Amino acid sequence: MQGKANERIILGIDPGTNITGYGVIRTVGTVPELIAVGSVDLSKFDDHYLIIKHIFDRTIGIIDEYHPDELAIEAPFFGKNVQSMLKLGRAQGAAISAALTRSLPIFEYAPRKIKMSITGQGAASKEQVAAMLMNILKFQMGDIKLDATDGLAAALCHFYQTNKPVQDKAYNSWKDFMNKNPKRVKLK
Amino acid sequence: MQGKANERIILGIDPGTNITGYGVIRTVGTVPELIAVGSVDLSKFDDHYLIIKHIFDRTIGIIDEYHPDELAIEAPFFGKNVQSMLKLGRAQGAAISAALTRSLPIFEYAPRKIKMSITGQGAASKEQVAAMLMNILKFQMGDIKLDATDGLAAALCHFYQTNKPVQDKAYNSWKDFMNKNPKRVKLK
Repeated sequence: MQGKANERIILGIDPGTNITGYGVIRTVGTVPELIAVGSVDLSKFDDHYLIIKHIFDRTIGIIDEYHPDELAIEAPFFGKNVQSMLKLGRAQGAAISAALTRSLPIFEYAPRKIKMSITGQGAASKEQVAAMLMNILKFQMGDIKLDATDGLAAALCHFYQTNKPVQDKAYNSWKDFMNKNPKRVKLK
Repeated sequence: MQGKANERIILGIDPGTNITGYGVIRTVGTVPELIAVGSVDLSKFDDHYLIIKHIFDRTIGIIDEYHPDELAIEAPFFGKNVQSMLKLGRAQGAAISAALTRSLPIFEYAPRKIKMSITGQGAASKEQVAAMLMNILKFQMGDIKLDATDGLAAALCHFYQTNKPVQDKAYNSWKDFMNKNPKRVKLK
C-alpha cells in the first residue's frame, strides 16, 4: 500500500498559438495511468488576443476538471526567430498565469529532454514518442492528434524525473549493483 | 458638453520581468488628465513564476481599481535575443491574460511609435518622454521612476492615435479642405 500515499495527478501542457496539447496522468507509486489527452485547435481564430484568452481559459478549465497537483510544460528555449519566440512566450505566459491562479507548482522541460525521457532518444520523432506513450499508458491514438501527445509526454517526463522509486535502488546482489551502476564501481 | 459623452479611461502598461510600469489617464474630449502612474519592481523576486504571477495579479488589481475602458501595451517586436524575447513574451502574456479576464480591448504600440507620438521623435530618450508627459499631464516626477512613465506614455500614445477630434475635420473654406485632403480632390 506504499503507493497510495504517493498518488499524484500531473497535467502536462505544450502551449502554442496554433495548437495547444495537453495530457493528464495519475500515478500511484511507479505506475502512471492515462486520465485525459487532447489538443486545442487555435488556428481557427483570427484574433491573437482570442487565442491568448482561449489558452488561459482552457488551462483553467482543465485544471478545474482534473485537479492536478503539478503542471509540466514543454518549453523550447530556442526558436527560429525573435518574433516566434515572443508569440510562444505569450502562449506560455497565458498557460502559466492560469496555473498560477490555481496555485500549481510548475516544471519546465525542453523538448529534447522530454523525448529523451520517453524514448531514450533526444531526437525522436513525434510518431516515436506517441508509440512509446501508447505502449506505456496503454491507449490507442484513434482521433488523438500527435500535437496532443506532446503535452502528455511532458506530464510523463515530469513523473519520470521526479519519481525515483525505491526498487530502482534495491539490488539482488553485489553483481546486480555493479551491473546497474557501472560508473560507481571503480575497477583497478 | 460634447466631450463628456466621450470620456475614456485608458490604462497603459509596459510589461517586463524586471520592472513593469503603468499609467492611467482619463480623457474628456481632447483633454487627457493623469489618474495614476507607477511601477512594480520585480527584480526583488528570485522566482520566475512569482514574477509572472505578480504581473498578472497587479494588472488585475490596477484594472479593478481604475476600471479602464482600454489597455495600451508597449510591445517591442524586436529584441536582443530569443531568450529575452521569450521572457518578455511571458510577461506580456501575463498582463494580456489579466486584461482579457476583465474583457478589456487591447492595443499594442512599438516603443518607437510611442516616443514619436509623445515627443515627435522616435529615438527620444526616457528623460525626454518623461519631460513631455509632465508638461502635457501637469505633474512632477517626484518619486516616480522613469520606467513608470513608459506605461503612461503608452496610454497617452493610444489616446492620440484613436482620438481624432472633430475640429481636425472642420474646414474654413473649400481651399482649406483641398489643402488638408489633397487625395480626396480629383483634379483633371
